[in-house]
Amino acid sequence: MDEFNKIESLRTHLGQLRGDGESIAFVPTMGNLHQGHLELVRQARQLASVVVVSIYVNPTQFGEGEDFDDYPRTLQQDRNKLESVGADVLFTPSDAEIYPHGTGDRALLTRVEVPGISDQLCGSSRPGHFVGAATVVTKLLNIVQPKAALFGRKDYQQLLVIRRLVEELNLPVEVIGVPTWREQDGLAMSSRNRYLTSEEREQAPLLYQTLQWVSRQLEAGREDYIQIEQEGESRLQQAMFVVDYLSVMQPSLLPAQSGSRSLIVLAAANMGSTRLIDNCMVNLR
Amino acid sequence: MDEFNKIESLRTHLGQLRGDGESIAFVPTMGNLHQGHLELVRQARQLASVVVVSIYVNPTQFGEGEDFDDYPRTLQQDRNKLESVGADVLFTPSDAEIYPHGTGDRALLTRVEVPGISDQLCGSSRPGHFVGAATVVTKLLNIVQPKAALFGRKDYQQLLVIRRLVEELNLPVEVIGVPTWREQDGLAMSSRNRYLTSEEREQAPLLYQTLQWVSRQLEAGREDYIQIEQEGESRLQQAMFVVDYLSVMQPSLLPAQSGSRSLIVLAAANMGSTRLIDNCMVNLR
Repeated sequence: MDEFNKIESLRTHLGQLRGDGESIAFVPTMGNLHQGHLELVRQARQLASVVVVSIYVNPTQFGEGEDFDDYPRTLQQDRNKLESVGADVLFTPSDAEIYPHGTGDRALLTRVEVPGISDQLCGSSRPGHFVGAATVVTKLLNIVQPKAALFGRKDYQQLLVIRRLVEELNLPVEVIGVPTWREQDGLAMSSRNRYLTSEEREQAPLLYQTLQWVSRQLEAGREDYIQIEQEGESRLQQAMFVVDYLSVMQPSLLPAQSGSRSLIVLAAANMGSTRLIDNCMVNLR
Repeated sequence: MDEFNKIESLRTHLGQLRGDGESIAFVPTMGNLHQGHLELVRQARQLASVVVVSIYVNPTQFGEGEDFDDYPRTLQQDRNKLESVGADVLFTPSDAEIYPHGTGDRALLTRVEVPGISDQLCGSSRPGHFVGAATVVTKLLNIVQPKAALFGRKDYQQLLVIRRLVEELNLPVEVIGVPTWREQDGLAMSSRNRYLTSEEREQAPLLYQTLQWVSRQLEAGREDYIQIEQEGESRLQQAMFVVDYLSVMQPSLLPAQSGSRSLIVLAAANMGSTRLIDNCMVNLR
């Protein structure tokens, strides 16, 4: 696996590969890789002859008081895992490489805003999060210039924000959402799971179980969405979660409508000091 | 000259050219082409084997009450001029092609914001103008994927906004600013000059003459920038201009500082109902 931490040297390398007729698939990550990430790499292998993975913990998508400083950085283990699944190129830029003007005053940085989709759910609770994520993904896509980029469906709202910006800014890349990889007990894999105490870890699968319970209500034909959301929230609260949101929506993230062919249930909730998110697509009829 | 109005067919064509080893230079325009535009095309010919020109009057960079509806659309004459200077590809997209979600509510469109540079001079007088321009240029660059893109230096602030977004979003393109093309009497060429009555047209060169007068003051060593700006504005007012701004700045568009090696004088002023802009670089010592 070739590793680069400078944009120019990565570009030169990828330009040579492209000149040799290779095609590139790209998996952007924040590192601390788990099976979900490795599945993205495996799927990327099916799509292109060269798989590029980036590991970059982007400061501008973390809010004041969030876990930027604590976010797990495990580069050597990540390298070994990526080698084991056959990633070809690893890009590990510094902050100075990605933000040459610094991130001291974010208001002065060029930014990509995706209104609408960004302004709800996680966007309400984490102001600036999706501007930071949309901007860094735009930058990384422009640096790597892949034909396809793969993202986990666990971060469903992020996936939609990226799909939208790729469409609206006409970025020449295919965005692929890969199903959530789960632990045996159903907990969605996430780098943040390692923040959980063992007691919290035991409770955590109740997030997905609650989403599944809500899904069954919808499959059974219930259309009293607000009531269902409230019942779901109560279940989470009883399981020691502090709920940010539990929402039944259309897959486009517009409000759920009676008679929809499919719906999505999304939730964000804190278990202790750990914010967990998950979602569940529901196909009806 | 090949002409396309669909993004996909343009991309297919350019992809084939790129596959054949051709390189692409790009000149984005709003049409109503004059010698200044044709000079951009001529310079583009020196830089790449294929020159792509776009003609698109972008609604989102015009404000309420500005001249979007009146902006001159002269496609057949533009085609002839482009043929005469050897442009290879013309891209003439519709609004629906560029903004498939419509432009009815701009607040809902994905946008590229370049803070700082955008928030002064023309940006103060034309709120939203540079967001619209930055966003459409990002889109066009992503559609055409040129190795170089050429812009006139008459729109100096726009040139800096584009340089900045290309740098900060890591767009893989070289941005080239081409000197302003002028009429014999010094008036900067602009599609908007055709709005001028013959009387206004006679007065209009006083804009550039005033910038040159300010330049001479600076070359003579004056550093009382505010006083010079006021004197310049008075000269414009005496020439029937309604002044928006006349500013002495650093080439980066930071405030002028004593001892600078070079400065730029920029002005925007209305002659009747026509907004004219121009600028003049001043090299000191």
